[in-house]
Amino acid sequence: MERNLKIPKAVIKRLSLYSRILQNLEIKNVQKVSSKELGELLGVNSAQVRKDLAYFGQFGVPGFGYYVSELRSEIKKILRTDRPIKIGLIGVGNLGTALLSYTGFKKQGFNIIAAFDNDKRKIGRRQNNVIIEDIENLEKIIREKEIEIIILTVPVEKAQEITDKVLSAGITTILNFVPTRLIVPDYVKVHYVDLSIEIESLSFYVK
Amino acid sequence: MERNLKIPKAVIKRLSLYSRILQNLEIKNVQKVSSKELGELLGVNSAQVRKDLAYFGQFGVPGFGYYVSELRSEIKKILRTDRPIKIGLIGVGNLGTALLSYTGFKKQGFNIIAAFDNDKRKIGRRQNNVIIEDIENLEKIIREKEIEIIILTVPVEKAQEITDKVLSAGITTILNFVPTRLIVPDYVKVHYVDLSIEIESLSFYVK
Repeated sequence: MERNLKIPKAVIKRLSLYSRILQNLEIKNVQKVSSKELGELLGVNSAQVRKDLAYFGQFGVPGFGYYVSELRSEIKKILRTDRPIKIGLIGVGNLGTALLSYTGFKKQGFNIIAAFDNDKRKIGRRQNNVIIEDIENLEKIIREKEIEIIILTVPVEKAQEITDKVLSAGITTILNFVPTRLIVPDYVKVHYVDLSIEIESLSFYVK
Repeated sequence: MERNLKIPKAVIKRLSLYSRILQNLEIKNVQKVSSKELGELLGVNSAQVRKDLAYFGQFGVPGFGYYVSELRSEIKKILRTDRPIKIGLIGVGNLGTALLSYTGFKKQGFNIIAAFDNDKRKIGRRQNNVIIEDIENLEKIIREKEIEIIILTVPVEKAQEITDKVLSAGITTILNFVPTRLIVPDYVKVHYVDLSIEIESLSFYVK
């Protein structure tokens, strides 16, 4: 499939959310789902669901809906999560350590295959089956292990310097937990995880 | 304002994202923004922006747009993030510790005012200005400190039991980092933070 980079980021994000909903339906042994039901589970309308999917082809049967497993496997192909993804994590502090052992990643088949830190006491230690590498070898190991996605959990003041190194090693996709904007060229995708967004939207419901 | 609970969850989530975008515009000294610009920054269209805001009243000037600071302050009022929010955190493991020191919360004025664990070695210790309390006193302290939102970072097998206690102390809003579904009554809002969703949508962009 051609990677159409003109597809809105929000559509890609929703694809991933549809995939998770479909996974939960599979667990409940639900076999089919309509665009209306799928939309309701995500809080969008059925037209949005159909429009999102239409970016990638023709799915489902008009008047019937979608086969849950079939649609999920199609979405995984689109997102290319139907293969092992090679992830590297930089910064084995509290958050980094938490992510190394995060069962939510394993549940989806995502594996962190390399971790990096600059703390001599941590380097060489094994954490959840991953040996913590010296950040001095970052670029070399990224290339050797063909790492595709970098998770960044370093202190704010180190974030840009490390990002520059990661880019020079050929990385183009970064998941950034550091609460700071990174300066990157246009061809690089950075997703920012802002955990405070969740608190903010929960606040609305406080009684 | 009447808390209209029929408002789609996705709208509330987007309000929070608009607020963050407006905050970034404020930092850049941008004074006004159109619904088109706001939509583009979030990956939705201008009609969606106007529709989202229309749930809560009349904002902005037709043909002109919105004053950035004014709209942000209106949205904060709607989300009720214009006041200190009292947050409690349960489970001071790696993720819990990371959240206690997460500068992204502080940046938004969110403060975790109580933390709980069952590990005797942790209880009584001070972590980022919060004393770790014995989980035995959970219900008592939730009531005394008038905690409004609970962040759950406990092991999967403890999640439901602790949730039940939290509910009996009167909590109705939970931010759940544990990768498991919680069984709660209808009037309780649980937001699930699934960190793998971000990896999934990044996968699409891997070159």
